[in-house]
Amino acid sequence: MKSSSVKELLLTAPTLQEVQVNGWVKTFRSNRFIALNDGSTLNNIQCVVDFEQFDENLLKQIATGAALRVTGTLVESQGRGQKVEIQVKEIFVHGGADPEAYPIQPKKHSLEFLREKAHLRVRTNTFSAVMRVRSALAFAIHKYFNENGFYYFHAPIITGSDAEGAGEMFRVTTLDDKNPPLDENGQVDFKEDFFGKETNLTVSGQLEAEAYAMGLGKVYTFGPTFRAENSNTSRHLAEFWMIEPEMAFYDLDANMDLAEDFIKSVIHYILENCKEDLQFLEKRLLDEEKTKPQAERSEMTLIEKLGFVADNSFKRVTYTEAIAILRNSKPNKKKRFQYPIDEWGADLQSEHERYLVEKHFKCPVILFDYPANIKAFYMRLNEDGKTVRAMDILFPGIGEIVGGSQREERLDVLREKIAALDIDEKELWWYLDLRKFGTAVHSGFGLGFERLVLFATGMGNIRDVIPFPRTPQNAEF
Amino acid sequence: MKSSSVKELLLTAPTLQEVQVNGWVKTFRSNRFIALNDGSTLNNIQCVVDFEQFDENLLKQIATGAALRVTGTLVESQGRGQKVEIQVKEIFVHGGADPEAYPIQPKKHSLEFLREKAHLRVRTNTFSAVMRVRSALAFAIHKYFNENGFYYFHAPIITGSDAEGAGEMFRVTTLDDKNPPLDENGQVDFKEDFFGKETNLTVSGQLEAEAYAMGLGKVYTFGPTFRAENSNTSRHLAEFWMIEPEMAFYDLDANMDLAEDFIKSVIHYILENCKEDLQFLEKRLLDEEKTKPQAERSEMTLIEKLGFVADNSFKRVTYTEAIAILRNSKPNKKKRFQYPIDEWGADLQSEHERYLVEKHFKCPVILFDYPANIKAFYMRLNEDGKTVRAMDILFPGIGEIVGGSQREERLDVLREKIAALDIDEKELWWYLDLRKFGTAVHSGFGLGFERLVLFATGMGNIRDVIPFPRTPQNAEF
Repeated sequence: MKSSSVKELLLTAPTLQEVQVNGWVKTFRSNRFIALNDGSTLNNIQCVVDFEQFDENLLKQIATGAALRVTGTLVESQGRGQKVEIQVKEIFVHGGADPEAYPIQPKKHSLEFLREKAHLRVRTNTFSAVMRVRSALAFAIHKYFNENGFYYFHAPIITGSDAEGAGEMFRVTTLDDKNPPLDENGQVDFKEDFFGKETNLTVSGQLEAEAYAMGLGKVYTFGPTFRAENSNTSRHLAEFWMIEPEMAFYDLDANMDLAEDFIKSVIHYILENCKEDLQFLEKRLLDEEKTKPQAERSEMTLIEKLGFVADNSFKRVTYTEAIAILRNSKPNKKKRFQYPIDEWGADLQSEHERYLVEKHFKCPVILFDYPANIKAFYMRLNEDGKTVRAMDILFPGIGEIVGGSQREERLDVLREKIAALDIDEKELWWYLDLRKFGTAVHSGFGLGFERLVLFATGMGNIRDVIPFPRTPQNAEF
Repeated sequence: MKSSSVKELLLTAPTLQEVQVNGWVKTFRSNRFIALNDGSTLNNIQCVVDFEQFDENLLKQIATGAALRVTGTLVESQGRGQKVEIQVKEIFVHGGADPEAYPIQPKKHSLEFLREKAHLRVRTNTFSAVMRVRSALAFAIHKYFNENGFYYFHAPIITGSDAEGAGEMFRVTTLDDKNPPLDENGQVDFKEDFFGKETNLTVSGQLEAEAYAMGLGKVYTFGPTFRAENSNTSRHLAEFWMIEPEMAFYDLDANMDLAEDFIKSVIHYILENCKEDLQFLEKRLLDEEKTKPQAERSEMTLIEKLGFVADNSFKRVTYTEAIAILRNSKPNKKKRFQYPIDEWGADLQSEHERYLVEKHFKCPVILFDYPANIKAFYMRLNEDGKTVRAMDILFPGIGEIVGGSQREERLDVLREKIAALDIDEKELWWYLDLRKFGTAVHSGFGLGFERLVLFATGMGNIRDVIPFPRTPQNAEF
């Protein structure tokens, strides 16, 4: 007999058909009601057992976490909360779960506790909901780009170039860990290493994506990127997934239009396709916020917030305008910013970004045209000679979710920039080639996938939106 | 004025509308016909220039590889090979391409030459077609799993466990390269390393995917995996992308059914969605094979071969049956195999796999029920006590494209296996937990994405189906 998923059964009309389903016991009440879940959906199927018909030893094995195969008749449910239930005829226990030993019992566990059980936490409602939404967002991203003429491009993970400078890198090596071979100068001889040179884990696929955009037109990456930074915050991971679209013939305006449309589109997708999970996560967030003082609670519920972002224009503001707003702001005047804003050119800190997004504009904000000297070398210099065509998208509660720019397409300007920063041109020979042969206006941006999932699920710690987080001192599992 | 892509224009009826398009010059003939391409499709749009209307200096810049913005009227084409063309009114040169310096000239380049120019090779017809097909296959994979109730799961890339044993690993570290800290025993003190332990790049996300399947039911990974093996062949990469579905409550038969259906589905997708690119690649392959002796040429064209795989059942054969066939085969009897097949238990080499697929069955083959001692520890032991529920899918011209198994779900059997292999149980504590709490029959497989792309595009070297290949002594770009 073919098995059905719980999701399928909950959508089936109860015409007394025989059904079979596999899943794990969520709860077993009154020796009679098994709530069974198989991960296909948040909701459980209720399996009603006539305990007099079953062996006592079998019933004893039906504890939270046990894996069962249940066969029976799908009938209209008499109870509240579900339309259908199974009148059980047969139960096969795939595997039990000793209540004394199994850590995921039907009670509230702290997120910290569950992080230690990352191999089991997906069996809770919260994490299964988060991970289904995560999966749906990933699919929505591929779907959006596929429908909009983009090609998926796999940037290399191991890279021999360290020119991008987006952050500290992890070294990748097969040399002897204790006694690496040395060259005649007494330095480690990376010629002996696997790739014949020093290699690292990528911090961004952008430079390579530019090469592909200059052939395929519109491409995007969606892959892991790495930062060897000792940042133990609720917003940073050492290993995270990033989406980096790159488009030939796009200027910064087109880039901002795309980023905004893209984010709205994927949020619409989950609003339509993840209703139950989002409702559950919304309720979880409300419960969590009840423990906070009124002033710290969100003004909108999770789903309201997602709808707000999906349906309202992002506010576009130049860096120069933002500095004026911040300089005249109450917290700046009252010296409440840790980093006071005195003059044009200051790098914005997260306290400033939050003020702009959460207090001043109260909506997602795109800041653009930043000072050249606080941004990366590859960003296109404006005619004013001091700002670059950079843009960051700031989200309430999250901060920077997107960073992008129009790229410097002029060989001479790029060369000057590289020289000023003391970067060796040889490191970037192929990147400069893109400006020598058929160069053109082009743009792109990067979106940190986990920050998007954080925003979409209302979770508070980035460690809770990736299956197995990698952070300083932690690479368990 | 909004720009259109070449793909859009080629599908537009020529009602004399004004159009604008950006792209790179493929060829410029007779100072009159520009073939312009923007990567959106294999085909070019012909732009017809009345050279008397344009400045000579402008026309001089229109060389192969130059990036242009062309504005003009979309009209019915008088020439053969295209329905529409642009009568050019205005040309803007984004960037030129000096014919003396630009390596991608309109002539035949060897694949080896283009590998050295991996940043530019996507501008050729061959590589743009390969990469569009690659992208379409990736999308088809996500689409298939999304439509079939699977959740996309991101396995960790940096791993602290080395128990899987699928191959040699790359070490990931931030310790000083020359003088790493040592512990009291004089060994490298990995407690000082970024993650507080020795870490490596993953060889497979399977074990972690099992943890997620035991909560979400059906999951799949699609991410990079790594092998630090000094294999300089046309079938091996040090960094490659792998797809690993893992399904709770699936036995080996269900696993084989899924793998076959999945592969057929994604091949159908590209047959429907990549017609022009596949036709081009088919012709490329035919041209390449013309240089070979008749006996080495394929019996089917590329598209015929794809259709054959998509529409015919894969042959399912036990290892034991395969050994009997091989033992009695002509090459074995005539001692033409490098590794003669004498007895049951021998590991199959690629010469044997090719014989079975290409000579004996002449179709994709699923071999299953392998001897336990040539397969991984986590595969489920059969009742015979000597074979395991493993399966490999073998493809003509490619060899192994899928490797999978039903997993050992019995705690005691798994523990015995681990002990016999001298693996430390502590390394696998969390993996064993999956057997302690709600264990169940489950299965999965891994498919090497680049091998699939190799098969789908008819290319001969795996270095030519990934944008920037990583192989021993090579991590350029």
